[in-house]
Amino acid sequence: MDTPPVRVALLGAGTVGAAVARRLGDRADLLARRVGAPLELVGVAVRDLTRPRDLPGVAADLLTDDPDPLVAGADIVVEVMGGIQPARGLIERALAAGADVVTANKQLLAQHGTELEALADREGRGLAYEAAVVAAVPVMRTVREALAGDEIRSIHGIVNGSTNYILDMVARLGVPFQEAVRQAGDLGYLEADPTEDLEGLDAAAKIVLLARAAWGVEVGLADVQRQGISGLRDTDFEDARGTGQVIRLIASAWCSGSASEPRVEVAVRPTPVAADHPFGMTREGTNMVIIEAESAGTLRLTGAGAGGDETASAVLGDLVNLARARVVARRRA
Amino acid sequence: MDTPPVRVALLGAGTVGAAVARRLGDRADLLARRVGAPLELVGVAVRDLTRPRDLPGVAADLLTDDPDPLVAGADIVVEVMGGIQPARGLIERALAAGADVVTANKQLLAQHGTELEALADREGRGLAYEAAVVAAVPVMRTVREALAGDEIRSIHGIVNGSTNYILDMVARLGVPFQEAVRQAGDLGYLEADPTEDLEGLDAAAKIVLLARAAWGVEVGLADVQRQGISGLRDTDFEDARGTGQVIRLIASAWCSGSASEPRVEVAVRPTPVAADHPFGMTREGTNMVIIEAESAGTLRLTGAGAGGDETASAVLGDLVNLARARVVARRRA
Repeated sequence: MDTPPVRVALLGAGTVGAAVARRLGDRADLLARRVGAPLELVGVAVRDLTRPRDLPGVAADLLTDDPDPLVAGADIVVEVMGGIQPARGLIERALAAGADVVTANKQLLAQHGTELEALADREGRGLAYEAAVVAAVPVMRTVREALAGDEIRSIHGIVNGSTNYILDMVARLGVPFQEAVRQAGDLGYLEADPTEDLEGLDAAAKIVLLARAAWGVEVGLADVQRQGISGLRDTDFEDARGTGQVIRLIASAWCSGSASEPRVEVAVRPTPVAADHPFGMTREGTNMVIIEAESAGTLRLTGAGAGGDETASAVLGDLVNLARARVVARRRA
Repeated sequence: MDTPPVRVALLGAGTVGAAVARRLGDRADLLARRVGAPLELVGVAVRDLTRPRDLPGVAADLLTDDPDPLVAGADIVVEVMGGIQPARGLIERALAAGADVVTANKQLLAQHGTELEALADREGRGLAYEAAVVAAVPVMRTVREALAGDEIRSIHGIVNGSTNYILDMVARLGVPFQEAVRQAGDLGYLEADPTEDLEGLDAAAKIVLLARAAWGVEVGLADVQRQGISGLRDTDFEDARGTGQVIRLIASAWCSGSASEPRVEVAVRPTPVAADHPFGMTREGTNMVIIEAESAGTLRLTGAGAGGDETASAVLGDLVNLARARVVARRRA
């Protein structure tokens, strides 16, 4: 192919970054065909150059601990480093320099996404983040694009796999709640600081992103009526079981106003649901999002909501779509 | 808004066309905000001008039985008239004249979609057809866009609501098969000529479109290993029940080759599935598509696969996305 490549800078080489780098290598031909030009990995920014890394196919001289020149020279910047800074500044500089940005950084987007989207709009650049919400389950794309001609009424979801794993073990296998939390920690399903999962902070960030996309309103983390699962007792589970129910951590957003004046509420709460409801049958770490729209009716999307490969699938999907659009724009120019 | 409108021509004013026209009216402000410019309905082409129609909000002088001038003057043409001709010629002329096209015409796409896509590519125009496959359930978008960086292994789906309604009545309510077919006909769930549904032709068209999008290969209706439900007997259902199974009409596409040399097979067949499998629990007219991808794992998408409003939701989603892209391209020009 004699089309000039699309230059991709990768910020972060953790689980997701390594999966993205590997796939850029082993799917190079496939991705080039889909994009209409090769995707060239021009560098991988990491915090600590001395740390040994498993990045097969990535030439050692592509690694750098200085992300700024990388960002300045890329067509598309993929941010999978996490955290607020330096990620925020790098994304801002990337957009200002004319790059499109793909990010999986839900907490950054929940806190500063509105400003970042406004910046991307002003610069005429793309900012895509399917990977920030339920990994490869295409909920952002469904809300932003598929339902772009519809009126969404509500979004409800099991959007955190770790807590669902715990709640499902208690409900289905009768494991005592504290024991289930401990086992999930032992299996690596919880962060070293498990607050993100157990207190619903991770779910809150995701439902904020979905609510903004669905109704175009200013909603922030502070607006979320949030209750985690850490306060649950075994008696809560027994009460639910007695009425044919199971407890799930449900993230919700709903619109009680009109399309022209939407009033949007967002909540994350442990919620009893019928054991044979689709949420009740969502097992282990699986995620499910149910969207109600005026014309489309009820849509359900289900899949793995976490994992390096799964998240990389969403990152690469956004990357290919932005790269395709660049190649088309180049041809027209 | 002082941006010039995006001019939309509507071909067809049946159930779907009427729903699209109505929503273009009552969602005008919302859609204009999302697009960045108003969507102006510049005309509605119908076969018979004398037939009375329920098109509230559509000025009588917008109706015409001469689609050619309409197509020549539109930015985006929405084809919901169905049938092969004149739909095919009109879409070709629309693309050649520089319009983007949205269509819900699955049989046209299954027969001539490859040529139409090639034409759209050459002209640098969009050809979108989410509505052709399972109405508002965003399967086309998932295969074409969300998984654009992934490798799809297989697609399996319940993609025809009428036959699922019949099979579900037999399995769950014990209605004799022929009686269930008759009831579905009485309820208007089957076409006047029920062959499309009962012989799996509708499902075959949909799985062909999905297979092409997933693997970029030439697959046609003649390649589908197709068996409808009309040959089923009550004993088939009894046998299934005896082993805890129910029969579903499953459309399948799978790749047995490699990413660089995909060998793709497509089939539509009545298939026994466990009663507690997600397919087995898909009730009445609901559709479900299960996609297996290398990195994303298993994704399930569920919702109504037919209906005027549901199909209009998908049409309007494609319309808004194409219109947005036009407005962005205009600003850059």
